[in-house]
Amino acid sequence: MLSVDEAFACLREHVRPLPVEEVALEGACGLQLARAICSQDDSPPFDKSMVDGYAFSTHDTAPTLRVIEQVTAGQVPHHAVEPGTTIRVMTGAPLPDGADAVVKWEDAQRLDDATIRSPQVIATEHATARRNESGVPIESGYCVLPRGAAFQTGQQVLSSGRHLRPVDIGLLAEIGRFQVPVIPRPRVAVLPTGNELVEGEGPLAAGQIRNSNGPMLLAALRQLGMITIDLGIGRDNLEDLRTRIEMGLDADVLLISGGVSAGVLDLVPDVLESLGVRQVLHKVKMKPGKPLWFGVRDSGPRRVLVFGLPGNPVSTFVAFHLFVRPALGTLAGAPFAAPTPRVGQLLGPVEHRGKRPSYHPCRVSGERRAESRERKREGGEKLAVEPLAWQSSADLATLARADGLALLPAGNYQLEAGQKVDVLPL
Amino acid sequence: MLSVDEAFACLREHVRPLPVEEVALEGACGLQLARAICSQDDSPPFDKSMVDGYAFSTHDTAPTLRVIEQVTAGQVPHHAVEPGTTIRVMTGAPLPDGADAVVKWEDAQRLDDATIRSPQVIATEHATARRNESGVPIESGYCVLPRGAAFQTGQQVLSSGRHLRPVDIGLLAEIGRFQVPVIPRPRVAVLPTGNELVEGEGPLAAGQIRNSNGPMLLAALRQLGMITIDLGIGRDNLEDLRTRIEMGLDADVLLISGGVSAGVLDLVPDVLESLGVRQVLHKVKMKPGKPLWFGVRDSGPRRVLVFGLPGNPVSTFVAFHLFVRPALGTLAGAPFAAPTPRVGQLLGPVEHRGKRPSYHPCRVSGERRAESRERKREGGEKLAVEPLAWQSSADLATLARADGLALLPAGNYQLEAGQKVDVLPL
Repeated sequence: MLSVDEAFACLREHVRPLPVEEVALEGACGLQLARAICSQDDSPPFDKSMVDGYAFSTHDTAPTLRVIEQVTAGQVPHHAVEPGTTIRVMTGAPLPDGADAVVKWEDAQRLDDATIRSPQVIATEHATARRNESGVPIESGYCVLPRGAAFQTGQQVLSSGRHLRPVDIGLLAEIGRFQVPVIPRPRVAVLPTGNELVEGEGPLAAGQIRNSNGPMLLAALRQLGMITIDLGIGRDNLEDLRTRIEMGLDADVLLISGGVSAGVLDLVPDVLESLGVRQVLHKVKMKPGKPLWFGVRDSGPRRVLVFGLPGNPVSTFVAFHLFVRPALGTLAGAPFAAPTPRVGQLLGPVEHRGKRPSYHPCRVSGERRAESRERKREGGEKLAVEPLAWQSSADLATLARADGLALLPAGNYQLEAGQKVDVLPL
Repeated sequence: MLSVDEAFACLREHVRPLPVEEVALEGACGLQLARAICSQDDSPPFDKSMVDGYAFSTHDTAPTLRVIEQVTAGQVPHHAVEPGTTIRVMTGAPLPDGADAVVKWEDAQRLDDATIRSPQVIATEHATARRNESGVPIESGYCVLPRGAAFQTGQQVLSSGRHLRPVDIGLLAEIGRFQVPVIPRPRVAVLPTGNELVEGEGPLAAGQIRNSNGPMLLAALRQLGMITIDLGIGRDNLEDLRTRIEMGLDADVLLISGGVSAGVLDLVPDVLESLGVRQVLHKVKMKPGKPLWFGVRDSGPRRVLVFGLPGNPVSTFVAFHLFVRPALGTLAGAPFAAPTPRVGQLLGPVEHRGKRPSYHPCRVSGERRAESRERKREGGEKLAVEPLAWQSSADLATLARADGLALLPAGNYQLEAGQKVDVLPL
């Protein structure tokens, strides 16, 4: 039986990022970019007016400028700006040939609907009269964003390895990249097993319980951004398990709950073996979660990971949090990172019995207080840990009240309030 | 023109949580529970064996116990345990009548396939021979999880107001609640507008740019867990805008980008007014983002929020981050929380000009270093802020490199390296 750390090492060795795929841009947010992206266009693709106003030549010496055209964004000027003329442009419109600046609509002096005074001439008059500081002629390039100002054709705009954010998605759309090379979102199939499980709202017959692992795992996977595949409930017979597990092996990861202990109906390991899934580990020295099973199936470069999780919901959750979650992170491109415990301080006593270390649901408090104290340098970064009384590894109600798992080492002992304890925040 | 803080106050006043709905459990993770949930069952619903083993009566004095039945999880015992008999049970199986404890499979002494020695008699022998500490009879209740141990019918299992996590989803499935009263996920429609916008990979014609706001906003919304509605690209004419905006008003929130400045084709405010959307604010004293428009349409208790975002992508992003994101949080049940700036220290000089405060893309570094310093009480919690050279509010490439927005107050001045600056981490 492996220790928890040995199980982490085992996963670290066997889990690697999924092969790179081109995926549609709209599904790429959050994924890791697998190659650097260079632009195939200049941005902006043309000299562009940044304001509503009049495009003109700053070298034009004519006292008035005749408005010969109006160009909105998305249109193309039909005329060039010649001496004595100007073209009305809207924000985002291309700068007409012959113009090198734009005077803002609110700064322009309109003589009539079709004529404005030359901004340069106005500036000269102001300068002569020393009336105010606006007596500076407009410079070439004023209110114009030149073609390629943001980036140019061939320039790298996103580096390989980054996790795509919404702004990156916008940038990729701007340069026309609607398929992007990424480490894809893992597809994860979920198969709770057990003849005692029922689905739906109806009353329970004797001996039945409702399937809680399936909905819990699917929700946790969706929260992590995985693509989920619900395989229904597997029954404790070889044929049904084989059919469903075969379907599950089309995914990148198959999570099975139940059927991995040593009872007469714990058929899952045999079925997996018969389908070519190689066992990598079975049983981990921990409580809850001991019956954990992990194996892989390779078909050429494709590797499917299979986790057999214990059937009890709390055990399933703890095993998911400790082992499955970091493995999913690695599939998506991150280095394998086992959950890191933090140091806590017990608010009440807790008793431990048994030869396996335990992960005990607890409430973690004082984190924010502790942080603000830190900031004030008044000391104390420890989390306050309140162990919760829980009934068994089937007790989801207590786990729902928990926001941490206290790590209690193997042995028979009692820890008192105030003693240190490692804790995994959930 | 409102200040940024006045705009926050305006939103705080006009945005309220969506009305409570019953939603399907599988879509409820992350949502705020609107009423406390009580169980309609005991958990577990029957006395249950926690192990694979033999159910027997601890009061039975017979030296050997005959195995009269085998019960797996999901089955119901057909017999009761009588003196001198036992029933083989698997983990999760109901405890048979007449039994009050289970001896584990690995601890049982099998005489043949159908008989075990009484655990109590073995214990007595051990005790007599003083051989070892296992000479303690099994106590009533050993390895049995009694009906209702985790929670009982009528007991509250989840409190109102909590954000549902995967464990809660499992718990709700366990008690058969597949419809849950929550503040629903907001539905947000996205409408970029502009005649210059094109979609797709093809080369750009003169004067065209690709639609980046649409994909960027949709990705940001999905990342926040919103339900998104893509309204395509709105063209700068009344008819097209009216049709698309009308569709958008079926959502809880409509985000329009572009068309809200004062150009000849900035038709959006008029169309919104004609469709009964009441303007609450137009223009905010900030850079970029000044043309922001916000309004509401009430139909009975239903309120649709409409944001007119500036057309330039960086402006859209800044306005989204500052105003839309907190509003979405409030729709989903949280108090309105404007983004909180943190104190940073400039790594290089930055110049500011203009009468509006600016939100300047920057790189924020040293956060982790700063935190670890804090922990060591060596001082310094400030973020190091490196202002990025950006070209214009169309420059998504620079924004993609940013992970913060430096807040530069209104005025003409230069800040030097080492000076304090407020920063909003992205």
